Amino acid sequence: MADINTIAKQFVDFYYQTFAGNRTGLKSLYRDHSMLTFEGTPIQGAAAIAEKLEGLPFQKVQHKITTLDAQPSSPSVASLLVSVTGLLLVDDSENPLNFSQVFQLIPDGGTYYV
Amino acid sequence: MADINTIAKQFVDFYYQTFAGNRTGLKSLYRDHSMLTFEGTPIQGAAAIAEKLEGLPFQKVQHKITTLDAQPSSPSVASLLVSVTGLLLVDDSENPLNFSQVFQLIPDGGTYYV
Repeated sequence: MADINTIAKQFVDFYYQTFAGNRTGLKSLYRDHSMLTFEGTPIQGAAAIAEKLEGLPFQKVQHKITTLDAQPSSPSVASLLVSVTGLLLVDDSENPLNFSQVFQLIPDGGTYYV
Repeated sequence: MADINTIAKQFVDFYYQTFAGNRTGLKSLYRDHSMLTFEGTPIQGAAAIAEKLEGLPFQKVQHKITTLDAQPSSPSVASLLVSVTGLLLVDDSENPLNFSQVFQLIPDGGTYYV
């Protein structure tokens, strides 16, 4: 089995590249019972999450990762907890924002969902 | 059942108050299979985690919470995922540090552990 830090890094790189270049592609990473809590608001299900992410009011966005931590999230299931912090560069603003995001990755037939 | 945001807020307030006032008291919140990942280093088990937290090289510390998000972490188990960001005030430094911490709370006979 691959090292969890490697899995976490690959996942996060893919997630933010997709976020920057093809935001609609993020939908495939979520399931109907997935939940995104965005600035305090819970959003349930792949369709609603995709709609939220696609509707965010910026065009260009880049996530620069400062820290990435991964650990198993359960003694019984091979799921991962991944915590990311970094800077968010939005459109052509010169003021980067701090961001913090947490992913829980659940294994599903050789891949993972959130 | 109490609202998850209320549970999360109570837990986090208790955690950081204990961190500030009685760091050894944090040990009771962890179990042998608990894991703390601290600045990239995984630490397993309540005893090792308590030793790490007690050994941190500062005397006075205060966590000022900026954001607190909670959501269920599993469709099948009543566990919670809590993400906290804020400022860390260490000793008498005038330069607060950003911090980000994630808790996974697992129910255990009417209480929760990390």
